[in-house]
Amino acid sequence: PRSRLPTVGTTIFSVMSALAQACDAVNLGQGFPDFDCDQRLVQAVSAAMLGGHNQYPPMAGVPALRAAIAAKIATLYGRTCDPDREITVTAGATQAIFTAILALVQPGDEVIVLEPCYDSYVPNIELAGARVVRVALDPQTLRPDIDRIAAALTPRTRGLVVNTPHNPSGTVWRADDWHGLADALAGSDVVVISDEVYEHMVYDGQPHHSALAHPAIAARSVVVSSFGKTYHVTGWKVGYAVAPAALMAEFRKVHQFNVFTVNTPMQYGLAAYMADPAPYQTLSSFYQAKRDRFRAGLARTRFRLLPCEGTYFQCVDYGGLAVPERTLPEAAFCEWLTREIGVAAIPLSAFYGSPTEQQRIRFCFAKRDETLQAALQRLGAL
Amino acid sequence: PRSRLPTVGTTIFSVMSALAQACDAVNLGQGFPDFDCDQRLVQAVSAAMLGGHNQYPPMAGVPALRAAIAAKIATLYGRTCDPDREITVTAGATQAIFTAILALVQPGDEVIVLEPCYDSYVPNIELAGARVVRVALDPQTLRPDIDRIAAALTPRTRGLVVNTPHNPSGTVWRADDWHGLADALAGSDVVVISDEVYEHMVYDGQPHHSALAHPAIAARSVVVSSFGKTYHVTGWKVGYAVAPAALMAEFRKVHQFNVFTVNTPMQYGLAAYMADPAPYQTLSSFYQAKRDRFRAGLARTRFRLLPCEGTYFQCVDYGGLAVPERTLPEAAFCEWLTREIGVAAIPLSAFYGSPTEQQRIRFCFAKRDETLQAALQRLGAL
Ligand SMILES: CSCCC(=O)C(=O)O
Ligand SMILES: CSCCC(=O)C(=O)O
Repeated sequence: PRSRLPTVGTTIFSVMSALAQACDAVNLGQGFPDFDCDQRLVQAVSAAMLGGHNQYPPMAGVPALRAAIAAKIATLYGRTCDPDREITVTAGATQAIFTAILALVQPGDEVIVLEPCYDSYVPNIELAGARVVRVALDPQTLRPDIDRIAAALTPRTRGLVVNTPHNPSGTVWRADDWHGLADALAGSDVVVISDEVYEHMVYDGQPHHSALAHPAIAARSVVVSSFGKTYHVTGWKVGYAVAPAALMAEFRKVHQFNVFTVNTPMQYGLAAYMADPAPYQTLSSFYQAKRDRFRAGLARTRFRLLPCEGTYFQCVDYGGLAVPERTLPEAAFCEWLTREIGVAAIPLSAFYGSPTEQQRIRFCFAKRDETLQAALQRLGAL
Repeated sequence: PRSRLPTVGTTIFSVMSALAQACDAVNLGQGFPDFDCDQRLVQAVSAAMLGGHNQYPPMAGVPALRAAIAAKIATLYGRTCDPDREITVTAGATQAIFTAILALVQPGDEVIVLEPCYDSYVPNIELAGARVVRVALDPQTLRPDIDRIAAALTPRTRGLVVNTPHNPSGTVWRADDWHGLADALAGSDVVVISDEVYEHMVYDGQPHHSALAHPAIAARSVVVSSFGKTYHVTGWKVGYAVAPAALMAEFRKVHQFNVFTVNTPMQYGLAAYMADPAPYQTLSSFYQAKRDRFRAGLARTRFRLLPCEGTYFQCVDYGGLAVPERTLPEAAFCEWLTREIGVAAIPLSAFYGSPTEQQRIRFCFAKRDETLQAALQRLGAL
């Protein structure tokens, strides 16, 4: 059949996970923990099911969960949201981003993505019938370059997708980046779609600078987050979107005809679990310790470490390895690494529109220490 | 903001459920049971969570669930499906239908819907950038009229949305309808999207005639079903799509960038539960008994019963009531019925593009017998 997405294959995350499984490799590719969630969260969902919460919830989400999200946002980012009109629970962050783009972008509009970027954004924009405008992050630092963004704005620019903490680079937006962006967008009707699924994984004492904390940005933003990432339940597929009421009204028009609504018992369980802020308050230090151990191990290999300020991803350059495969393109290198060395990773080329071979790959360190040790042992042999 | 769906408000099902709750009315509007699911199913999901099935499943769905779906389809409809390439688990049937339309329809294509129809189809087609072609079901019987469909086909027709058993009318497609459609579509590249979420609710000894049972149709179809409807867990939001591999490959390209994948523990729980065919084998007789009791009760009121061959919906004509409100348009009548009489229903006008006031409303009888009795008592007063 004709294709709406002729250049798209299966997402790299599925491909690499399948290959890792087939090769019995240590899977540091797709971003998910190999340890389990808090059993109190499981109990809360079981209790919701036993309590009969098994039929349709309200379209925008269970009120208790939206209230808990609003309370968290008020505490962490100082923004007051109306849970009835400004928060919608989604079937994961990916669905929230897609729904926002479909709802807020028209055919003929331009939407800016900052490359490298997560692989769903570009197809999402294409499916909305809009034109993708790729703006590079600073090639050295992979940090946002507001001048480049400003230079890409046209009267047709309708959307900008931001991601902080940033997958795959681990960079984070600072207050100045948001201020610069607010100035650049002043007077336009550009909507910012801010993917903040790693909001609780920011290291070295830095805070997460959410779009929600910057009123001029928040007024034009759909901010997206994920319970899967925060609570170690990537398979539950629950996230949420926050936006001013006028934008959220459009979001919900599409949401209701996409998934209609989101798993009821999971929502009740998450609402109960959110009463305790400790799990997300302690997440950064939990993952920072993993990052530090993993980086220390990698520092003893011939991989060159790139910075990691947030997320649970660590990028490395493999150009200095002592094996002939160090000259392979990133995707081929990852396949070789999986098959022959037994460690799966993600090629950074998967986050770019046109192949920019830089000999860089991404490891996920959301893994048990034994898993990371096993990977490091294999990687150290190179 | 500008709107992608300027004529769309909140879906009628949400509106009426909220009104029913606000008025403390008996809610026979939105289609969901007011009784609980089998506790074995709850236990199976709890066991999956406790067993650590909380991270991303494969993009197309948990293999055991896809295998169980394929086995059911082979038994019931005599079709052999490859679960690896022809079945995808979705976040409910609504998401499956939307994803199929987005994936298989291009801007400029025409997609036929058979009116009256479920309220997501038309916005789904509009979001895909295609043109909606509304073909009426037979106005007397609300059964498909193949001649009308054939007359609406053009070289641009790319899709046709079928729904059997049909919401709201309760009519079902017969083998002859499918044969006629196969002839009408022969030689075209029209894709049939067959919404069969009520497949296990067909009454009076009739079988469900699935698109999957008709090879010439199945070869061009995406068939959609729902665990929510079949297992009394509408809030779990798990359904699936079945299509030939070439169509399914396109479906998955969009699916992976919409929801990516679907709740893992629910999938494991459903896979385990599907081992026993009794729950879906006995569903028609369970609901037929409710239908019969509800119809018998309505027959003692001044509402005029329309036929009901399948689904858990019963439509009635209120033109013969002894109250002045019998002349109200359907939406206003439903609001009055909810507020003043204490019974929520859905106006059939919600299933049409242009208001066709026929004094018809839809009741959902997926309710405990006490609930139906309470509603009948109130309705009998009219
Ligand atoms: C949706 S699967 C991929 C998970 C993820 O966010 C990543 O690995 O980048
Ligand atoms: C998605 S909410 C509505 C449920 C339903 O299918 C109906 O009431 O028609």
